[in-house]
Amino acid sequence: MLNKDTIAVISSPQGQGAISVIRLSGENTHVVLEKIFIPKVGGKKYSDLKTNRNYLGIVKHEDEVIDEVIISKLKKPNSFTGEDMAEIFCHGSTYIQNRIMELLSDSDIRTANPGEFSLRSYLNGKMDLIQAEGISDLISSKTKANHKIAMNQMRGGISSKIKKLRDELVKFASLIELELDFSEEDVEFASRDKFISLLNNVEKFISTLIDSFRYGNSLKEGIPVSIVGAPNVGKSTLLNSILNEEKAITSPIAGTTRDVIEDTLNLKGTLFRFIDTAGIRKTSDDIEKIGISRTMTSIKKSEIILFLIDSTSTKKSINNQILEVDKLKKKYKQKKIIIVFTKIDLENNLNDKFKIEELSINTKVQKDISEIKNKILESLNTEYTNQLTITNTRHYSALSLARKEINEVQKGLKKTVPMDLLSVDLKQAIYHLGEITGEVTNDEILSNIFSKFCIGK
Amino acid sequence: MLNKDTIAVISSPQGQGAISVIRLSGENTHVVLEKIFIPKVGGKKYSDLKTNRNYLGIVKHEDEVIDEVIISKLKKPNSFTGEDMAEIFCHGSTYIQNRIMELLSDSDIRTANPGEFSLRSYLNGKMDLIQAEGISDLISSKTKANHKIAMNQMRGGISSKIKKLRDELVKFASLIELELDFSEEDVEFASRDKFISLLNNVEKFISTLIDSFRYGNSLKEGIPVSIVGAPNVGKSTLLNSILNEEKAITSPIAGTTRDVIEDTLNLKGTLFRFIDTAGIRKTSDDIEKIGISRTMTSIKKSEIILFLIDSTSTKKSINNQILEVDKLKKKYKQKKIIIVFTKIDLENNLNDKFKIEELSINTKVQKDISEIKNKILESLNTEYTNQLTITNTRHYSALSLARKEINEVQKGLKKTVPMDLLSVDLKQAIYHLGEITGEVTNDEILSNIFSKFCIGK
Repeated sequence: MLNKDTIAVISSPQGQGAISVIRLSGENTHVVLEKIFIPKVGGKKYSDLKTNRNYLGIVKHEDEVIDEVIISKLKKPNSFTGEDMAEIFCHGSTYIQNRIMELLSDSDIRTANPGEFSLRSYLNGKMDLIQAEGISDLISSKTKANHKIAMNQMRGGISSKIKKLRDELVKFASLIELELDFSEEDVEFASRDKFISLLNNVEKFISTLIDSFRYGNSLKEGIPVSIVGAPNVGKSTLLNSILNEEKAITSPIAGTTRDVIEDTLNLKGTLFRFIDTAGIRKTSDDIEKIGISRTMTSIKKSEIILFLIDSTSTKKSINNQILEVDKLKKKYKQKKIIIVFTKIDLENNLNDKFKIEELSINTKVQKDISEIKNKILESLNTEYTNQLTITNTRHYSALSLARKEINEVQKGLKKTVPMDLLSVDLKQAIYHLGEITGEVTNDEILSNIFSKFCIGK
Repeated sequence: MLNKDTIAVISSPQGQGAISVIRLSGENTHVVLEKIFIPKVGGKKYSDLKTNRNYLGIVKHEDEVIDEVIISKLKKPNSFTGEDMAEIFCHGSTYIQNRIMELLSDSDIRTANPGEFSLRSYLNGKMDLIQAEGISDLISSKTKANHKIAMNQMRGGISSKIKKLRDELVKFASLIELELDFSEEDVEFASRDKFISLLNNVEKFISTLIDSFRYGNSLKEGIPVSIVGAPNVGKSTLLNSILNEEKAITSPIAGTTRDVIEDTLNLKGTLFRFIDTAGIRKTSDDIEKIGISRTMTSIKKSEIILFLIDSTSTKKSINNQILEVDKLKKKYKQKKIIIVFTKIDLENNLNDKFKIEELSINTKVQKDISEIKNKILESLNTEYTNQLTITNTRHYSALSLARKEINEVQKGLKKTVPMDLLSVDLKQAIYHLGEITGEVTNDEILSNIFSKFCIGK
């Protein structure tokens, strides 16, 4: 997988700008730059330059001055890729960028594939796979929350924990191997108590990460927030107020919204996906029926549910709806269900308890909308935002497989299944944990991962 | 004009990429970075870092890690702007770019206006105006020829010559001032012979630059090449073959082309603008008449004229058309007029002399089209491409005004006009030369020039 040829790429965003960055990596980097770069320091050649400093000079080809540039030289292994590298900071004209790339190509420097610098960095042991994927996520992060998770991932927050636990599992696995080698002597190199305690630790950590995935993944797409309630309670009006635009068609006629309407909004750095649904009620209208079944589906898929209750309804009706909410709360314990009494500006039947304990709003009042937004932000599972979170399906799958194997070992230990059988499961668990950080992998997986990277990284 | 505040800007092209560049300039650069940048070198602070080197570290705000970046620190006056500067190479996520800019803005660092770094560089005497304009031209250059001119301009090729001649004029002007102060004593500090010789030199140099403008300017827009000739000689077919596309409608009916059709083509790094015109002939068709008058106009505007002659015409007709070309050559001495005999694949009346000395082609044959392209490239005024060329209307105007004043002084010296009157013209000439390099200028001109720069430069 590790090509020994020298690669170059335009690493700054595509197009014209003041400054562009061209990066080179590989054995011939300095050989080629020696030929085309002339430093603007009296009598010095490229090869005289020190590493990790910036030098002004010209890139030229025969008598053609292509650009005045700044060059920074890096020697292996002290570079991003672990290879000899250089960075050229040139003027951001597309002509100059292309001309320099052309010149490098004439010297047999190949244009790098997307992610190829990161791939080399990984293959040369400068970072592990999950860190490399963190860089890619970091570059495509659009919100504060995603940025934070990707940054933690890139900086090795998850890697170090996984590696530590995996190393301990490996240690136990080898002790068990040893026992099996000496099986006729009936020795016990690996303490069963310590082993069980380690397995519990690993299982707990993996489970936390697996649980974080649902949240982490929805952070990428927007955390789903359903807006539900009886017909004409003001769901679409609320959606419009939150999004501050006329997204849903509103009317005083019950049943106006039949489609599920949604849109995303960045609230203080976290992306939310708001879903306006058709009202929940018994209906004879077939189209509306479909809408209601969609409402139930969207509740299932949501992290947060805004349950709207019309405060001008009868006391009996209000109490019935509260009972409805209690049922939902019991059914979906992990979801945050927020009761919102609407139409509070009209004559209403809310008792003081509700007024104090629950949200009661007028959807047309900006202050009330802010209150809802705050409540949504508060109900965020802050446990996850402050901890290790995974957002990548590949990690999720590998962790799930690892946990399955760990569970097998745990069960086996209780039933005193022979150690040589458990050893197989243990090795599988170790294998799957190694897949995440890239300690075990194969070319197909690698090329699949790195081809999704942006050009230049 | 020189603001003392600190500015920052994203200097790499807009959008998402692997790496982006943020530049800072001004007094607070290092004060602010001290607060938000933490180097990844054991125990060191930003203020401990050496200049002109690259340091890895993190940009952070409270406990939020915004990015792992490379920073390069520059101390005044050894920087592009001549002020304290720094360059941050961050990951190219738009979130990160914006977040860092936000953080800088919170520390009262203002987002730079387009061209503001170059403006400061100029105001701090790091480069002159024409060089700064060269950078702007360099970034927008799309062809080799434009790139070369802009590069020469940026590197001071024109500046140094203009400055040298201007300095000599200034020296003479002060000697003349001295004479005027001592006018009653009738001394001559300034040698008249040397003065006349200097004026001639200056006039010659300015004239060369002025002459280069027509060419330099057309390099930007594309050097105009007219395709002319009798109706149905194959002008549109030739245009299509050169452009390798069906741009003009062709038909065997004479007079098909009534509009002037044009398109540009990059030939070995030089942009040409090919103009297909209506045939030249006596006509009763009013619309076609307009077309023919446009043909004459386009000949006037062109640098190069391809005069097409149908080789299947009678010998008499061919000779008449050759006479026509001779007339054009006499009328437009500066233009290159290339005779092209068409339809050479048919039975024709070309004599051997023409076949050898002139181009004779079949417009459908690619080799013949290449021959025409080569002839066009050969006929380029190479004198200009290898010399100083101006492309900027501002320079052209200032040079024209300077020459006018120089001519006044030259005339005055012959007529022995009093020195105090000539001194006024001389100062005006010096003033206009100073406008080009920016030795004299005003805020309005400056803001007009630099506002056209791209963002980040």
